[in-house]
Amino acid sequence: MAYEYTITRTVEFSETDMAGIVHFSNFFRYMEAAEHAFFRSLGMSIHPPPGEIKVGWPRVHASLDFSSPLRFEDTVEVRLLVKHKRRQSLHYAFRFRKLNEDPPREVARGSLSVTCVKRDFPGGPMKATPIPEDIAARIEEAPEELLR
Amino acid sequence: MAYEYTITRTVEFSETDMAGIVHFSNFFRYMEAAEHAFFRSLGMSIHPPPGEIKVGWPRVHASLDFSSPLRFEDTVEVRLLVKHKRRQSLHYAFRFRKLNEDPPREVARGSLSVTCVKRDFPGGPMKATPIPEDIAARIEEAPEELLR
Amino acid sequence: MAYEYTITRTVEFSETDMAGIVHFSNFFRYMEAAEHAFFRSLGMSIHPPPGEIKVGWPRVHASLDFSSPLRFEDTVEVRLLVKHKRRQSLHYAFRFRKLNEDPPREVARGSLSVTCVKRDFPGGPMKATPIPEDIAARIEEAPEELLR
Amino acid sequence: MAYEYTITRTVEFSETDMAGIVHFSNFFRYMEAAEHAFFRSLGMSIHPPPGEIKVGWPRVHASLDFSSPLRFEDTVEVRLLVKHKRRQSLHYAFRFRKLNEDPPREVARGSLSVTCVKRDFPGGPMKATPIPEDIAARIEEAPEELLR
Repeated sequence: MAYEYTITRTVEFSETDMAGIVHFSNFFRYMEAAEHAFFRSLGMSIHPPPGEIKVGWPRVHASLDFSSPLRFEDTVEVRLLVKHKRRQSLHYAFRFRKLNEDPPREVARGSLSVTCVKRDFPGGPMKATPIPEDIAARIEEAPEELLR
Repeated sequence: MAYEYTITRTVEFSETDMAGIVHFSNFFRYMEAAEHAFFRSLGMSIHPPPGEIKVGWPRVHASLDFSSPLRFEDTVEVRLLVKHKRRQSLHYAFRFRKLNEDPPREVARGSLSVTCVKRDFPGGPMKATPIPEDIAARIEEAPEELLR
Repeated sequence: MAYEYTITRTVEFSETDMAGIVHFSNFFRYMEAAEHAFFRSLGMSIHPPPGEIKVGWPRVHASLDFSSPLRFEDTVEVRLLVKHKRRQSLHYAFRFRKLNEDPPREVARGSLSVTCVKRDFPGGPMKATPIPEDIAARIEEAPEELLR
Repeated sequence: MAYEYTITRTVEFSETDMAGIVHFSNFFRYMEAAEHAFFRSLGMSIHPPPGEIKVGWPRVHASLDFSSPLRFEDTVEVRLLVKHKRRQSLHYAFRFRKLNEDPPREVARGSLSVTCVKRDFPGGPMKATPIPEDIAARIEEAPEELLR
């Protein structure tokens, strides 16, 4: 059972914009990269190869609050915390820190909510479904004090 | 004085992901495209050429709630509404509709908050500053009933 | 029968990088956008909905030569020309012009080669296949003098 | 003196498209990421902080030949080789291999040419300039046999 995961990455040139900072939409990609690495850390893939797919995880909510910019070649740590595990959905909180500053500085906080869905046939409509037991068994909610 | 602006665009292939739908991060880019088109509709640029820049508009908050996916070649309408005009910040609401459905279907709602900043010298730190009068004079808050 | 198509777009903020110009990878996206608009202009989609898909068009070659940068809010014209129509592949040439300059300035030239493929079953390996007759009948090669 | 550098990365979800494979434009971003990591490996940055910038490196040519697709969570190795070091430009060759296949499979080959430029004043026009000696001294051409 796990309730957190942390990735670290170096800001790439193609992620910056003409203001000289990371374009805000890329923070959402960083968030998702941490979510997918979290799944891999539990021995799973968020999107298994065709044939093995049981469920999908469409995004229903995403938000970010930015307090400080990131620049090219900054080292950013993205920490995922499981805020809520519901029957048919997962709700994550994220903390972004710039590590190449002493002390490391929090630059953003985010949240992401995903619903567990399945399809009755390929290409069919997505329906909310309970999180499969083998997935739910590996994920737990983070302690309250980490989420403040 | 204006409190809204609407753009329409066709979903591009490079905006989709392996789930066959528009990657959620691109909704944030659509939102920003509407914001910048709103500024152009008022005879301004969100980011004038060097020399003419007086202020910048870093994003401090962005969020989206998704109700339905968008696919390749869908026609999406993005409607911007000015929710709040504060002394040093602007707060927008967004409605996304898929137009190639009858009737058009709302697929997402979003919000974006930006702060007006200036720098005392090039490359210097950004400081919050009152919105310049010639900009503030062209923008007003949308009627409450449009924001529900 | 058609051998060319032209789209015009306004450079978006999220397409720029910290050098203040359009990131070079986005020229490839512009190129593809012109290719897909070309197909639509012929009453087709490069990627029809599931069920209608007969063939796919993986990219086998892409190149660009850049002569001048594009900036935020520049108006760029992307002109596609059909260079070669082979039995199993299409080869396009592209000319990029910045229209908000007098006279318009050529800023880049590109090429794109795509192979027509099909799969024997969903998720199966892609195999090169002759371009379906109803598609081939709508496309012809551009006159030599346009390709210089 | 160095003539090569190799990076390895895991394909991210946001880099895929509705065809289920990495969008071709992202290979160009991978190429650039290898170029920038190569510079870092030599104790330099391709884009130093304002104040330290002496030269820029606009792209003048970029090309890719694709032989096999990459998918979500594939491990891709991008190997940069210095093909030519000219007085005012650098020309790189790239080899892409998918490592999570036994044996690793080459999936693409690319090339990138960049010109060394400087500006006489901030925002001024870019002019080709000789590669500064301290940069040129760290880079050499790869042996012919590696470039075949």
